[in-house]
Amino acid sequence: MDGNAIVITGGILHDNHAKTTHGLIRGSSRYNIVGVIDENHAGKDAGEVIDGKNAGVAVYSSIDDFKTNGAEQAQYCIIGVATKGGTIPPQMQEDITKAIDCGYAIVNGLHEFVSDIPHLRDKAREKGVELIDIRKPRPKSELEFWSGRIKTVNCPVIAVLGTDCALGKRTTAIWVREGLVKEGVKAEMVYTGQTGWLGGYKYGFIFDSTYNDFISGEIENAVVECYENEHPEVILLEGQSSLRNPSGPCGSEFIVSGEAKGVILQHAPARTKFTGLEDIDNDIPTLKDEIALIKMYGAETIAVTLNSTDLSPEQGLEWKRKYEEELGIPVILPLEEGVSGIMPAVHNYINNFKK
Amino acid sequence: MDGNAIVITGGILHDNHAKTTHGLIRGSSRYNIVGVIDENHAGKDAGEVIDGKNAGVAVYSSIDDFKTNGAEQAQYCIIGVATKGGTIPPQMQEDITKAIDCGYAIVNGLHEFVSDIPHLRDKAREKGVELIDIRKPRPKSELEFWSGRIKTVNCPVIAVLGTDCALGKRTTAIWVREGLVKEGVKAEMVYTGQTGWLGGYKYGFIFDSTYNDFISGEIENAVVECYENEHPEVILLEGQSSLRNPSGPCGSEFIVSGEAKGVILQHAPARTKFTGLEDIDNDIPTLKDEIALIKMYGAETIAVTLNSTDLSPEQGLEWKRKYEEELGIPVILPLEEGVSGIMPAVHNYINNFKK
Repeated sequence: MDGNAIVITGGILHDNHAKTTHGLIRGSSRYNIVGVIDENHAGKDAGEVIDGKNAGVAVYSSIDDFKTNGAEQAQYCIIGVATKGGTIPPQMQEDITKAIDCGYAIVNGLHEFVSDIPHLRDKAREKGVELIDIRKPRPKSELEFWSGRIKTVNCPVIAVLGTDCALGKRTTAIWVREGLVKEGVKAEMVYTGQTGWLGGYKYGFIFDSTYNDFISGEIENAVVECYENEHPEVILLEGQSSLRNPSGPCGSEFIVSGEAKGVILQHAPARTKFTGLEDIDNDIPTLKDEIALIKMYGAETIAVTLNSTDLSPEQGLEWKRKYEEELGIPVILPLEEGVSGIMPAVHNYINNFKK
Repeated sequence: MDGNAIVITGGILHDNHAKTTHGLIRGSSRYNIVGVIDENHAGKDAGEVIDGKNAGVAVYSSIDDFKTNGAEQAQYCIIGVATKGGTIPPQMQEDITKAIDCGYAIVNGLHEFVSDIPHLRDKAREKGVELIDIRKPRPKSELEFWSGRIKTVNCPVIAVLGTDCALGKRTTAIWVREGLVKEGVKAEMVYTGQTGWLGGYKYGFIFDSTYNDFISGEIENAVVECYENEHPEVILLEGQSSLRNPSGPCGSEFIVSGEAKGVILQHAPARTKFTGLEDIDNDIPTLKDEIALIKMYGAETIAVTLNSTDLSPEQGLEWKRKYEEELGIPVILPLEEGVSGIMPAVHNYINNFKK
């Protein structure tokens, strides 16, 4: 554990754009979250705001409010939102300035780096405060090319892919892993997003801020390191975006370079257009078609997990039945029913795995 | 034209690892190539070494030899080889030091930057010489996210993809473009590799040194800029690597984000393993299977172009006949017969294009 942290959310703690914060509130082994700073939700519990379940994390109206009324003090201040274009909005810079004044190290997962903003960089230097820009690419000399070492990994790798971005791939991967661990299976997860890093997972890298040429080698390296150090029975590999999302088609790398021969596929039945591209004439492909594409890359879809956004409970169950009938594999609604419904299929896949 | 340039090849001008140089010798509108420095081929014509055709570019044994005997002087020195891991080998650093001493600006397309090597950086500073590291990523503030602007491009985009890397995609794209231009078709090419930049093409970016998150937006932006400024009837889009090459699976981005609905597919029949990964148990997929995968992404394969490496002329023609029969589309051997054989199919595709 690195230490105690507050999270600043600029008034949108309730929103999907604060999903970094939602992940942190649901659990981080890197930071102990001791408060959220959000003037629109001050006085509430952060968990109550996110999903109605108390998380024991209070929301404060300002950093001053936290300093005065917080039960514990903090060493870190995490920027807990995604913004359009990945920039740091001016109003958020005020909070960051305040946090630097308080001596908190700044943790930033946005595309724009705090260390690239002159007045913040200068202030941090003056105060001796560390600026942690998570997405700052590592030097090329530390990055790996794909070498084929993946062939030495002698346990199944299951990628959690999706038909769109931002529909719950990471959460599903975490839950499936936890479910397996509870049942006594030595399961590990390899993260590929900044939230995974924030959550304290040990193996992985940040996909979208890596130079394209090193993506395949970094996937391989993360899986191989995880395998060699932990000797797991199965590795869950967090996917990114989707195979045919025009704003960032990916997914084949996890199968081809990470040798994930099994896939759990996340899908939101109520979504017809890709997130953020609702006005653009590209439809999200059907599950059946996506599974066929995944098969062409050499992987088997073990199970489907549904995101129930904009569905009534009845509609959710209807889609589940419809897909199970159409696809002949288990289909679940993780948020509503947990992941136990796909565990037999996952166990079966692990037990029958042959390199 | 930026100016006169020499190219240093460290003794391997004849080799596929000097393909950057081969491209420059075959034609660059950015640099006028006035000499190649290669002690193993000194005294010959560079074109004769590469493909037996005189290119009017002499090979010199050293930079001193060039300075004494070259017909023209140079302002640039281009590093004309690819190296394992993209590093600058120590023996090459001697030539670079010498070039800086001569006042030549250094042009480097390798992953390792000349400006990151302290003694070269210091010497360049001292001599007032420019270091041009082509692969140095542009600042994020200058990079584009995918926005859907591609929908305004109202001409066909044809991607030249391949079943492996390093088998002639760029050359085929250039030749098809030139063939169309000769026939009076306004055709443009968008490059995606460093050799395209070196060749002086106006629209494009360097795929493999771009942060993953910006790949889709940079493809879109290059195609849109080319379309808006040049009003072409067709855009040829240079592909990279291949869809299922584990060391860098890509190709779907050109179709999905660049909206290349037509594909010319380059293939080397004698190759069964991916380049550089000959000992690894991943076979290059069959052409039929690759065309099916391309179709799943929404693009039609218009024609196949064959790389004849390790084939006798008879074997080349046999593969051509076999594939034409199997696939029902034109198949040619560009190096042996030029690209005229696929021109009717390309014209047909352009004429029938509907957005």
